[in-house]
Amino acid sequence: MAIKRVVIAGMGFGGLSAAKELAGHGLEVVMVDRHNYHLFQPLLYQVATAGLEQESIAYPVRALARRWQGAAFRLGEVAGVDLAGRQLLLAAGALSYDYLVLAAGSRTNFFGMESIERHAFDLKSLADAEGLRNHILTLFERACREPDPARRAALLTFVVVGGGPTGVEFAGALRELTVHVLSRDYPEVLTAETRIILVEAAQSLLTAMPPELREYALARLRTMGVEVRLETRVTGADSEHVMFHDGTVIESHTLFWSAGVAAADLADRLGVPQAGGGRVKVSPDLSLEGHPEVFVIGDMAHLVQDGTPLPMMAPVAAQQGRHAAHAILARERGEETQPFRYHDKGAMATIGRSAAVAVSHGLKFRGYLAWLIWLLLHLYYLIGFRNRLLVLMNWAYYYFSHERQVRLITGEDRKTE
Amino acid sequence: MAIKRVVIAGMGFGGLSAAKELAGHGLEVVMVDRHNYHLFQPLLYQVATAGLEQESIAYPVRALARRWQGAAFRLGEVAGVDLAGRQLLLAAGALSYDYLVLAAGSRTNFFGMESIERHAFDLKSLADAEGLRNHILTLFERACREPDPARRAALLTFVVVGGGPTGVEFAGALRELTVHVLSRDYPEVLTAETRIILVEAAQSLLTAMPPELREYALARLRTMGVEVRLETRVTGADSEHVMFHDGTVIESHTLFWSAGVAAADLADRLGVPQAGGGRVKVSPDLSLEGHPEVFVIGDMAHLVQDGTPLPMMAPVAAQQGRHAAHAILARERGEETQPFRYHDKGAMATIGRSAAVAVSHGLKFRGYLAWLIWLLLHLYYLIGFRNRLLVLMNWAYYYFSHERQVRLITGEDRKTE
Repeated sequence: MAIKRVVIAGMGFGGLSAAKELAGHGLEVVMVDRHNYHLFQPLLYQVATAGLEQESIAYPVRALARRWQGAAFRLGEVAGVDLAGRQLLLAAGALSYDYLVLAAGSRTNFFGMESIERHAFDLKSLADAEGLRNHILTLFERACREPDPARRAALLTFVVVGGGPTGVEFAGALRELTVHVLSRDYPEVLTAETRIILVEAAQSLLTAMPPELREYALARLRTMGVEVRLETRVTGADSEHVMFHDGTVIESHTLFWSAGVAAADLADRLGVPQAGGGRVKVSPDLSLEGHPEVFVIGDMAHLVQDGTPLPMMAPVAAQQGRHAAHAILARERGEETQPFRYHDKGAMATIGRSAAVAVSHGLKFRGYLAWLIWLLLHLYYLIGFRNRLLVLMNWAYYYFSHERQVRLITGEDRKTE
Repeated sequence: MAIKRVVIAGMGFGGLSAAKELAGHGLEVVMVDRHNYHLFQPLLYQVATAGLEQESIAYPVRALARRWQGAAFRLGEVAGVDLAGRQLLLAAGALSYDYLVLAAGSRTNFFGMESIERHAFDLKSLADAEGLRNHILTLFERACREPDPARRAALLTFVVVGGGPTGVEFAGALRELTVHVLSRDYPEVLTAETRIILVEAAQSLLTAMPPELREYALARLRTMGVEVRLETRVTGADSEHVMFHDGTVIESHTLFWSAGVAAADLADRLGVPQAGGGRVKVSPDLSLEGHPEVFVIGDMAHLVQDGTPLPMMAPVAAQQGRHAAHAILARERGEETQPFRYHDKGAMATIGRSAAVAVSHGLKFRGYLAWLIWLLLHLYYLIGFRNRLLVLMNWAYYYFSHERQVRLITGEDRKTE
């Protein structure tokens, strides 16, 4: 009997946990990604704010494939799926499968606002994070030799859209970067000249958190000097302006967008029913209706639990990856698959140095303790001993020295401004 | 009396040592570079061969300016110098000076061979090193799904031109990367399929070394599996071929060029007498004839000592930087400047794991001891405690695990092949 092949498209948290669970069970497991590494996305904002080098949050997939029996890696961009022919279509040829796990993740959702899509920064890839870091540092270089106060103010104004964890963490980290590090690097620039404006359409930040933690986060950010504007929407932008829903305009060269995510483009090319944000509707066991050999997991998948769609976040993806793997192994044994159920272990967000919020099983944490929990859990989930050591070293260094080493303007295009 | 301004163009080893020496003497010291960091060029080849992350060999100039009294940094590309008007011309305006230190370093010399200039890789910047690493890893990705043996062989053939320290170190590190790391990452590719050809026009490698060390290096490289071709010249290239002086052609997608350096372009734009390689002829005290307020140092400067021009290497640049600083301080005190004299402390090159050659004050070292000396000296000269720790950690990790973590294909352009 020929060995059956499972193809997993996407090496984020979902794809990776599916592959890990499937390895060593006599199946051929082919991991496909357009990058040759798994990216620890929750720490991208620290790369963008010069706290971590990009290499410390990326881990080569082949280093995992080596250790996982039956697993192999294939670098390639997924163009689509031939569901009838059971083939994953790559730019450089097709890959046939017996089982397919689609875990291509998400893209930023600009809700059709083209001017924002063209001018905003987002954080999905290492290149995004490196580009944003270069952009921020280059603005400070320009500001310190700009004599005109208005132009100078525009260079030093940063608008962050989205009061979820990404927006809160980025705004907090950017504020700390400017107050503790850049203020010393650029003595010509006053801390008071730098503005960070965090914009949220809802009535509060971190809407997934309990009210008291939301209020703590809001108060903490404001104490740090971040301007928070609630019930406010950004509706347009060009390279030097940000437009708001009430018609006001702010001069700023930096619009950071974390106000929405949608399923990866691949979801649109499958020709199957989709829900909000383009997510693919899946059966309770995460397989595709009519295609029990195809599973869709993570940000790409739409599944309702207790009346609401499951959120697009790493723990859901990781649990779904394991579930899809178990479903495939069950099919191979001729058993029934089980419906997926998400076990919510909690949520957290860090605001700044020694300040975070966390909620788990009804317990609420804030401040230093929450920050320690955040730190330990992120280290724990980071892959690879060396990466953990690198990140820990960077954090310890920053904690004690208030210094961020990675404030480098890299890349051929940006070597001068 | 107004404070006098010293402008230093270029933050390599020369410019940096001049700035360090000048700081704290009541002068305004403006450091100019097109990058916002000092780059430790001797370790670029380790970034290119996935041994170090780029951030660990770069150090922000502003972190130094903070500590050096009277020092400031200005990011900018130098367009030229108005010697009569005493202004350094930057893309974004002019910078007037009382003293000027030109330390713009060197560029790769392709000796007018345009096909090589277009297709060869070289190592002058972080972007070069990152690009070369991405290129090498992408070739392995392509090779492991290439069915045609001839095309596969071409993908896995690497031609390194230049038997100086850079060529030897890169060839050795690339061989170790393929034998110890990539052979395990790409089980589809056989180590025997990978060819690394080191080409040198002279009769031996490392011509600056004593004969027994040259022979040791040659034997060691050959034992490691590097093909060394002496008295051979590369005369042309396209994206898939390398042409040799005897008319033979090798199919290869990678031509690495370290066979020549010339003074940075800036030297051509000064309108002053130049020597071989475009280097600027300087007076014995390193100043420009007729312009005692302008000093030219490092790779840009041509000065003959004991009958031969000083070599283009870091120790010469660093010593000249200090000398130029002392000459400026002497002028300020109304004293005579002294002629520069290079104190040769030795030379070294590493070939591979536990294998290097070094010569100092007539003493010759090779093998493990030379390798340890190489390692300690490079750590010592690397700037910043954190960078030292990062590099040491990477080296220790690689030494004990035979693993290189940074084998990432990064950058927007290269995310698929």
